[in-house]
Amino acid sequence: MSLKKYLLAPGPVPVPPNVLNAMAAPMIHHRSPDFVELFAEVKEGLKYLYQTSQPVMILAATGTGGMESAVTNFLSPGDKAIYVNGGKFGERWGKICAAYGVQTVEVKVEWGRSVDPAAVKAALDANPDAKAVYVQASETSTGVAHDIRAIGELTRNLAAITVVDAITAMGVVNVPMDEWGLDVVVSGSQKGYMLPPGLAFVGVSEKAWRLNATAKCPHFYFDLAKERKNLETNQTVFTPAVSLIVGLREVLKMVRQETLQGVFERHDRLAHATREGLKASGLRLYPVGTPSTAVTAVMAPEGMDGQEIYKTLRTKYGVTAAGGQDQLKGTVFRIAQLGYADTFDTITAVAAVEMAITTLGGKVNLGAGVKRAQELLLAK
Amino acid sequence: MSLKKYLLAPGPVPVPPNVLNAMAAPMIHHRSPDFVELFAEVKEGLKYLYQTSQPVMILAATGTGGMESAVTNFLSPGDKAIYVNGGKFGERWGKICAAYGVQTVEVKVEWGRSVDPAAVKAALDANPDAKAVYVQASETSTGVAHDIRAIGELTRNLAAITVVDAITAMGVVNVPMDEWGLDVVVSGSQKGYMLPPGLAFVGVSEKAWRLNATAKCPHFYFDLAKERKNLETNQTVFTPAVSLIVGLREVLKMVRQETLQGVFERHDRLAHATREGLKASGLRLYPVGTPSTAVTAVMAPEGMDGQEIYKTLRTKYGVTAAGGQDQLKGTVFRIAQLGYADTFDTITAVAAVEMAITTLGGKVNLGAGVKRAQELLLAK
Repeated sequence: MSLKKYLLAPGPVPVPPNVLNAMAAPMIHHRSPDFVELFAEVKEGLKYLYQTSQPVMILAATGTGGMESAVTNFLSPGDKAIYVNGGKFGERWGKICAAYGVQTVEVKVEWGRSVDPAAVKAALDANPDAKAVYVQASETSTGVAHDIRAIGELTRNLAAITVVDAITAMGVVNVPMDEWGLDVVVSGSQKGYMLPPGLAFVGVSEKAWRLNATAKCPHFYFDLAKERKNLETNQTVFTPAVSLIVGLREVLKMVRQETLQGVFERHDRLAHATREGLKASGLRLYPVGTPSTAVTAVMAPEGMDGQEIYKTLRTKYGVTAAGGQDQLKGTVFRIAQLGYADTFDTITAVAAVEMAITTLGGKVNLGAGVKRAQELLLAK
Repeated sequence: MSLKKYLLAPGPVPVPPNVLNAMAAPMIHHRSPDFVELFAEVKEGLKYLYQTSQPVMILAATGTGGMESAVTNFLSPGDKAIYVNGGKFGERWGKICAAYGVQTVEVKVEWGRSVDPAAVKAALDANPDAKAVYVQASETSTGVAHDIRAIGELTRNLAAITVVDAITAMGVVNVPMDEWGLDVVVSGSQKGYMLPPGLAFVGVSEKAWRLNATAKCPHFYFDLAKERKNLETNQTVFTPAVSLIVGLREVLKMVRQETLQGVFERHDRLAHATREGLKASGLRLYPVGTPSTAVTAVMAPEGMDGQEIYKTLRTKYGVTAAGGQDQLKGTVFRIAQLGYADTFDTITAVAAVEMAITTLGGKVNLGAGVKRAQELLLAK
């Protein structure tokens, strides 16, 4: 048979079979009572996931569309925004702001490190006119987490809002929007949600809505205020991505069944075993800062090309992981157990990495990483 | 059993079972060779559908996102644009332009009528500085078609471009982009494409690309020039809606198999039988202008509420059609056989309308419309 395939990339991720089935049901009309009922249900499920009493808007777009809405709906051209740039996605906040004429103050973070909240505080102190701080909860390009809780605290009593790209964090790690004072939180369907790509989600605090009322950056398709109004009657402004919202109902049911705590503990357990396993294999992890729970960035062993490891995983072993992006191309490869993932996905990940490196003639403690992962994953 | 359901609305439309199955396959990664191969195939299929040698960009958004991209990627704030406003979607062109600071010249068309190309010519003559004409091929709110061929001819030798919303026209009626000199053509997945909503498509002529090079309206997520560049390597700029693109491959295969001519003739045959059938039932059609092939707008009989007919179709007969929008609410209802539709969808449509009106105590020639539709649909 052809190679059996395993999707262990930081998104898109495997979609559970019951969700695939649900999405294969006949199409329903978005202005029909069936849809209204469905939408009412997912609306509540999203509040549970976001740990918020605020409405969470659903956009027919992938994550970057959600990020764009988090700029254009809250700022005006000429406004000043601080953004944390510690990787490809941090950099994207700066590019979106620039595209809309928003002045940016960059908090540059060396790739592989987490931002020091003191650096954000210094930027806020130096720029009391800044309207917002843009940051990633998990910077997928470097496999590093930023301390969004600390950043939320910094702006809690300021006029500025904290805007979090939680695309590889929501449904993976704890992002209690209300408790942590996070004002705008963006997520996307193809990560912790276990869905195909095509939906973006945006939660908005009362403080951010006040900023929205004066925001002048042009926008039409991504209009969060109109979406909030339509949410009241369980509708979207424009045609929604119906089949993905049908899938959303199923995954939100699964999350409730497992509980948020269960979801977070499972991801933490798998990510921890992956990291410790790969270290026992003799590999070095890329992050110097707090590692992301969503994705593990691994250094290619001395003298090896990370892209070759990534390709060998795919072509010889059927495992789709991810290579390095931009300046990390060749230096690292990335592997994830995200969303619909459990114990033996982690075992597969560690075993496959050991075997791919061995296949390429690299030095690795074959079996040692798997054993370490087994120890950590043993059921109590 | 609960009521068996029939989706006969002007989008979303039924998705063929083989397409639903294809989309229920395990997720693939968008940077993998599997996806690249898939994308190469749909890229060619879209050119066939659009009848163009130009690349057709795929956006993860619903139709309005595509419409927005057709404004922001070609115009600058302060530019002047002419738009044909003969219904809710024509009006939307004006709203999008206004959101981005584009000056608009409105060619107002009475609802129910097709635009007179002479009125567009007059607007072009009076506004030689206009950069673009925005128009619908099929105005879904009124069930009316505009003569986009004539409008394409008007701008062929001018600097201005013709931008067509072909959302309920592509894959339904002939829209030969290159031959008719249409510069930007927008379509969406949930109409003639027979897919769930969530993809927008934008074809762009060489003339429009030249305008793109100087366009200053801000945009980031919808960046057609970057998408064109990425198309060369069979990729999208941001994460694409993978499962819908998997479905797209299937529907494009079906279109090729049926041939474009076959697709157009089938829709024409069904729409013609619907119109003539409903007239034989004693009903009056709403359009005064050229009726749209995608959707038939029907007047509620004297003294009846169109919304009641629409609701009765749904609640008593399981048929999801559409009501009237905005000023037409109550006056008309709309019924479509769009995409995955054939003979007995039309029979069902005409029979259900007759039966719903009879149920409501209205006057209708029960059976007469169905007989007329049968006559017109008899296989030769």
